[in-house]
Amino acid sequence: VADVTDFAPTSVPGGVTAARGFSASGVAAGIRNGGAGKDVALIVADRPSAAAGVFTTNKVAAAPVVVSRETLVPGVLQAIVVNAGNANACTGWRGLEDARAMQAATAEALGVFTELVAVASTGVIGVRLPLGLVESGISDAAAELDTNGGASAAEAIMTTDTFAKECAVRVVVGEHTWTVGGMAKGSGMIRPNMATMLGFITTDAPLTATAAEEVLRAAVGRTFNRVTVDGDTSTNDMVLLMANGAAGGESVEVGDPRLEPVAAALETVAAELARMIARDGEGATTFVEVTVTGAASDSDAELAAFTIAESPLVKTAVFGRDPNWGRVAMALGRSGAQVDPDRFEIAVAGVLTCADGQAVDFDETAASAAMDAPGVVIAVDMHVGDGEATVWTCDLSYDYIRINAEYRT
Amino acid sequence: VADVTDFAPTSVPGGVTAARGFSASGVAAGIRNGGAGKDVALIVADRPSAAAGVFTTNKVAAAPVVVSRETLVPGVLQAIVVNAGNANACTGWRGLEDARAMQAATAEALGVFTELVAVASTGVIGVRLPLGLVESGISDAAAELDTNGGASAAEAIMTTDTFAKECAVRVVVGEHTWTVGGMAKGSGMIRPNMATMLGFITTDAPLTATAAEEVLRAAVGRTFNRVTVDGDTSTNDMVLLMANGAAGGESVEVGDPRLEPVAAALETVAAELARMIARDGEGATTFVEVTVTGAASDSDAELAAFTIAESPLVKTAVFGRDPNWGRVAMALGRSGAQVDPDRFEIAVAGVLTCADGQAVDFDETAASAAMDAPGVVIAVDMHVGDGEATVWTCDLSYDYIRINAEYRT
Repeated sequence: VADVTDFAPTSVPGGVTAARGFSASGVAAGIRNGGAGKDVALIVADRPSAAAGVFTTNKVAAAPVVVSRETLVPGVLQAIVVNAGNANACTGWRGLEDARAMQAATAEALGVFTELVAVASTGVIGVRLPLGLVESGISDAAAELDTNGGASAAEAIMTTDTFAKECAVRVVVGEHTWTVGGMAKGSGMIRPNMATMLGFITTDAPLTATAAEEVLRAAVGRTFNRVTVDGDTSTNDMVLLMANGAAGGESVEVGDPRLEPVAAALETVAAELARMIARDGEGATTFVEVTVTGAASDSDAELAAFTIAESPLVKTAVFGRDPNWGRVAMALGRSGAQVDPDRFEIAVAGVLTCADGQAVDFDETAASAAMDAPGVVIAVDMHVGDGEATVWTCDLSYDYIRINAEYRT
Repeated sequence: VADVTDFAPTSVPGGVTAARGFSASGVAAGIRNGGAGKDVALIVADRPSAAAGVFTTNKVAAAPVVVSRETLVPGVLQAIVVNAGNANACTGWRGLEDARAMQAATAEALGVFTELVAVASTGVIGVRLPLGLVESGISDAAAELDTNGGASAAEAIMTTDTFAKECAVRVVVGEHTWTVGGMAKGSGMIRPNMATMLGFITTDAPLTATAAEEVLRAAVGRTFNRVTVDGDTSTNDMVLLMANGAAGGESVEVGDPRLEPVAAALETVAAELARMIARDGEGATTFVEVTVTGAASDSDAELAAFTIAESPLVKTAVFGRDPNWGRVAMALGRSGAQVDPDRFEIAVAGVLTCADGQAVDFDETAASAAMDAPGVVIAVDMHVGDGEATVWTCDLSYDYIRINAEYRT
């Protein structure tokens, strides 16, 4: 068994095609309103691959979620097809047929089994998929598949995203070099349980389906599910993982010590993608990290961190570069977490603003200047226990309103 | 016993001084940053009165909440003092001393027992009360007490409110005419459990303290706690009721049929004040009523209605006059309420947009035009049971951001 106690994932280019044996593409199929830009993406493995998925908990799940959840049951995938511009949600049984038709068209274009194709969609809710456009997009995308196609695929899944999101890392485990790469989309409607968030991760490590499931679920819990932009969650979210084993090595099962570096690499990729999503929150001018320590439990810490991160008053204060810790205290108090009103401590952008539950003297101008940065940390120490949690979000600006008041019309 | 089966509250002017035996006043004491406008209010009864209070559930409760909650335990009050401009929250033991000093100064100025004075504050968090200004404001306000002073008091408790909120109604019960009047403040940070919401209600009906408690709690549950502007809740909220019995009649205890018309009158006043608060939500251009019917239970309906009413995506769609029912469906799905994805129905501004969980054909231009009104109803029928709930909120506009990004600086 290789020594896996000392490893560090190294960043590499390539996104979902960084790992061996994966190709991808993105093409413009005219699905989007207005028709501009790429909107169909394919990610294809060179062989049937161990696979796992995590899906939205929204009870109004979109058709592609229903179809992909079913498809993932045996834990094997060879391809993923994604369209942007139309969510195929709230479309009833016809929507399910459309999602299955998308799956079948992909299988046919690639010459793989239908049961090995996952389907994802993002965009407007309640409108039927323009199936003809999607199908011709799929056949174009199949023709453009490329082992350097990661960036093109990442671009094709964007909706209100302002930049494409991809990253990849490499770990050396004994004699093998395993790569984990991923891409994601998401900017509005993001919150735990992965609202309107799509994430696709590939690896050439030889995971079993059970191992893939375990590491994916753990990584999503600590990364994608720690992002919140506006508290809304979508009908369409999913994160999928394919592991084709193309880099060699004996099969890695749950409990194998070699799973640890793969899990770490996967979490590195997922965390980076999740932070990119928060950074790209609709209208965001500042990335916000809320850390809560000293809580009665980790779940209390999470409750407090999410309540602070989702408070519109906290988020507008960050937009206004206002070190308004009173709003943080207010959110803390209503979070439901155990609070000692005479002990908590709040630092904003590195400036201690409140201790023992009360104001401390601080330089407001300096604190406001410190908040004028690409990233602001709001750190709360509750001083009642050892629980801790970190949540990522962004500020709430005029542009959030503009984007969402005008999104459809 | 009087016939109380057929009564209808009649609207009357006067706010908290509409009922007999109450006087009020509002004065400018210079507590607000900048110092403009009235900021100290008094409401005084002609005798010790049966009283009840409902307070914030925020665990970081402000000093005046702690003091008034204590004061209310015996169920008797004769006066209420309120200041705007400073919340006296997150101010530690000194804040408690300040709140008690405010209470004592009022008792002295009015010549009543300290134990009969409730204290309320609203404004900036974490800054000590300018006690000298507050005390001289109290003595000015005592000198200006007037049985027509309701409007002046209502004005003095405003913060980001754009209009003063008061109303009163009268009911005839047998040979007696009883009046219930009230005033409130609140615009941002409003949500159930009465965030940054102050409400003061007076009546000349001869309620006992227990009866006052019962009717107040019931009315608040169905009115003030059904308002949400941004999901944030405050450290300072309270609703207080004083019943002095000045209109005559035998004491009304719990179970007395004469309590019913008083409860109805109280609920009418509280509902009107609550709707005014939603209408005055920070930056609001449109009042929004979300009604959910056909839910598995009333609490499921409430969960769904609040999730829809608090969704920033739904609120910005209303601002954009976009009949975007997909966002309503999304909120419904993530609310935690039992949903049958193939049965729910959504109407926006009277236009059916979704049935059986899917889009129906409707005229988008006409629906958008119908939304361009002072009030928009979003009606959801879940078709799974008999539960129902109504929640009031407003849209989310550029001005919400402006007001809250600039509030303190």
